[in-house]
Amino acid sequence: MTDINTDPVLAHALARQPQLIKVLKALVSCPSVGADPAMAHGMEDARRIIETQLDAMGFENRRRLTPADGSGQPAVFAERLDAPGKPTILVYAHYDVQPSDPLEKWQTPPFEMVERDGRLYGRGISDDKAPMMIALDTLAAFVSVEGRLPLNVKLLIEGEEETGSPSLPGILETHRDLLAADAVLSADGARWRPDLLTLNVGSRGNAGFEVRVQTAGQDLHSGRYGGIVANPLHVLSTLIASLHDEQDHIAVPGFYDGVAELTEAEREKIAAVPFDEQAFFAAIMAQPVGEAGYSTLERLWMRPTVDINGMWGGYTGRGSKTVIPSEAFAKLTMRLVPGQDPQSAKQAVIDHLKSRLPAHATLEVYGDRGQGGAYAVPDAHPLLGAAVNALEQTTGQTPLKVRIGASLPLTDIVSRVLGLDTVMFSFALSDENFHAPNEFFRLSSISDGLAAWVQIMRQISEIAPADFAPYRRK
Amino acid sequence: MTDINTDPVLAHALARQPQLIKVLKALVSCPSVGADPAMAHGMEDARRIIETQLDAMGFENRRRLTPADGSGQPAVFAERLDAPGKPTILVYAHYDVQPSDPLEKWQTPPFEMVERDGRLYGRGISDDKAPMMIALDTLAAFVSVEGRLPLNVKLLIEGEEETGSPSLPGILETHRDLLAADAVLSADGARWRPDLLTLNVGSRGNAGFEVRVQTAGQDLHSGRYGGIVANPLHVLSTLIASLHDEQDHIAVPGFYDGVAELTEAEREKIAAVPFDEQAFFAAIMAQPVGEAGYSTLERLWMRPTVDINGMWGGYTGRGSKTVIPSEAFAKLTMRLVPGQDPQSAKQAVIDHLKSRLPAHATLEVYGDRGQGGAYAVPDAHPLLGAAVNALEQTTGQTPLKVRIGASLPLTDIVSRVLGLDTVMFSFALSDENFHAPNEFFRLSSISDGLAAWVQIMRQISEIAPADFAPYRRK
Repeated sequence: MTDINTDPVLAHALARQPQLIKVLKALVSCPSVGADPAMAHGMEDARRIIETQLDAMGFENRRRLTPADGSGQPAVFAERLDAPGKPTILVYAHYDVQPSDPLEKWQTPPFEMVERDGRLYGRGISDDKAPMMIALDTLAAFVSVEGRLPLNVKLLIEGEEETGSPSLPGILETHRDLLAADAVLSADGARWRPDLLTLNVGSRGNAGFEVRVQTAGQDLHSGRYGGIVANPLHVLSTLIASLHDEQDHIAVPGFYDGVAELTEAEREKIAAVPFDEQAFFAAIMAQPVGEAGYSTLERLWMRPTVDINGMWGGYTGRGSKTVIPSEAFAKLTMRLVPGQDPQSAKQAVIDHLKSRLPAHATLEVYGDRGQGGAYAVPDAHPLLGAAVNALEQTTGQTPLKVRIGASLPLTDIVSRVLGLDTVMFSFALSDENFHAPNEFFRLSSISDGLAAWVQIMRQISEIAPADFAPYRRK
Repeated sequence: MTDINTDPVLAHALARQPQLIKVLKALVSCPSVGADPAMAHGMEDARRIIETQLDAMGFENRRRLTPADGSGQPAVFAERLDAPGKPTILVYAHYDVQPSDPLEKWQTPPFEMVERDGRLYGRGISDDKAPMMIALDTLAAFVSVEGRLPLNVKLLIEGEEETGSPSLPGILETHRDLLAADAVLSADGARWRPDLLTLNVGSRGNAGFEVRVQTAGQDLHSGRYGGIVANPLHVLSTLIASLHDEQDHIAVPGFYDGVAELTEAEREKIAAVPFDEQAFFAAIMAQPVGEAGYSTLERLWMRPTVDINGMWGGYTGRGSKTVIPSEAFAKLTMRLVPGQDPQSAKQAVIDHLKSRLPAHATLEVYGDRGQGGAYAVPDAHPLLGAAVNALEQTTGQTPLKVRIGASLPLTDIVSRVLGLDTVMFSFALSDENFHAPNEFFRLSSISDGLAAWVQIMRQISEIAPADFAPYRRK
């Protein structure tokens, strides 16, 4: 195998970093907020930039993929099947980003890439436009230097990751043959933290929906009607308060169905992870709060959650308005752990809310976010081995295998639909404010990432395709 | 006394209705939302229109009144002291209006007066720009026909009624001599309902504030932090849920201090009021809900409330954002009944919230709304007698004396600061959607109102000023 220190592909990729940053800047300037229909132009602009890159890299069969009914944000697909007899890897990333609000908390405009103190700032830069560009530029460097890739690569860059990947199952089902591969390598799924080399081997699942509580046909004057009608903000607050008990257990019947209690071995393994809890919480100016009986990392990796992500009703402008609103709203998501069926867990929460609803109010459930189960990559999977080796060779350290609290819908979806395993190989770090104001990506992660991606490509090219067979479930 | 049917002043006022409606249209076109600093131009425009009217009516000593420190929205003052030896009445109205949101629920633009089916639509038209114009045009008609008013009138038209009249105490204290009068006649304080002739003889008090709950220094990703930090929307929901018990009693220690239990006599009187509860709630598509053990009218007139008027936090746009917000907000007001000290009641609610606050969250209380106690006009007050007579003479019916659930801060404030009683003589009706979308005022109420106002002026002019003396407490 080529020596990491003299690898001409890596040398080429490193030399081309200014070009990578230029494309990244263009990508960040596209407000590709998939959740917001008003940002459709940003989605389209992002797709076109990526497509231009793929064409320049000599990728073939470039297409936009949707489910059979043509719905949703199209995923960008392209492939280079350069290496007969070598493994075929589906490389995954996403071009959509989270909404940028609260805007007033950004120090620089979210859709303008700004370099400051060795960091690049902008919405979506860490999740996951920069990690995606690291993967793409690695592939481009192979093509430039060697004229081909050392393995077969199919690219799938989706546009609905931040909204729960609702179209992804349909895309995979509809284009099953086109997407056939030995395993999935994801440029998304951030590494845990800057001070510890880790590899994510598992993620929580997720599900979500919105609710609307209504108590009257119109907003009412709080003097003329106060005390004689229900206030939907009181009703909704009481429903939300009922989701957790005083120990922060989730008080929803059936929600924990299928969740296995942590074994002593799992607890010991988690307890052995170096983790400066005090510094971690100090950084976000918060205190460790959560379900009684579990450590912070146990809660984060192995216990499910129900969170209200947004809630509103009545007068929210400046000053005062003495109104009893007629309706109140909340957005709710949950994080799920191995053993939980996402559909059942979601239904349990809906049933709980309905069972607690007073007779004088109505509850509408809508805005389904799609759902996915928790996921874990098998410990002996050859792609995981390649990832460990690549990180060891480029850093000199053995990565610690950890789970993450977040969800990568892809992992569960490709497992269910295509029967494939996924390794997350992002170079984002979890302190980089994704989904929050002032999202950033470390400049130094670009060269680290390019080195590791060049190396994992070479590692995978050494694996016999047959070694993947035991892990291909369909 | 002049016969109501041939009163030349009334005839003149009725003939001038098109002119009244024209001025009213101009007033409605001023977005005089006192709560919103961005609407300062609407406040100023409204003041100028009123001042132009007062000048045209020959009112004197026109001024803008503020507290000694010059703060707040100025009240417009003017007087005609035409009738030595006759009573001096302080006529009250307000030129500020409630915010117009939710805008999308208005059938026509809120700040554009539109006539439809015998009704005039527009924000603030019922509360209380039309009732104010009825009072002003009555006075103008006296001046036009008789060259003078039959009694002494001081006008006080304030700009902070909808925000709790925070400057009014200071205005009254600073201009005590200027505002000296025998009693207060308010053009604000809507009549109860179209199918029953009533006079409001009491109102609930009010108080309010805003809260901000904070649990972290920044918004956090619900996957990366879900289960290990507090969610401020959960904290705030739990606090709000704790304000009432399951019987809808207010579960705040000390809140009911001073509230007298209803006597059997009071209950019988309220039970005798004709009230079609089913039709009342059907009209607003709501169900009767509230404190156990009290009838609807008992709750509305004689029991205090705590209501959330607005609440918000996290992502409230379209689609999904998997965020744990760092802060959550609520606007809270209460309605108070005789015996409650507004400051103590408010402090009890604040103390309750603070006592329930978990250690990992902070609570900021701000946005003080000012406060006022409940009020009742003495049953034998001569101005109340004049109001009853005026309504009897112009309608042929004896008005039923009722309380209202709403608050007129003025009543409590003039009682406390000037020692004067107030009679509410508005021609708004409580079904006219004030504080809500599609606020309207009945066209027919203009002529009804002019007749009653002409008549009450004549009634008051027959009262000896000495008859007010027992009721002047300062």
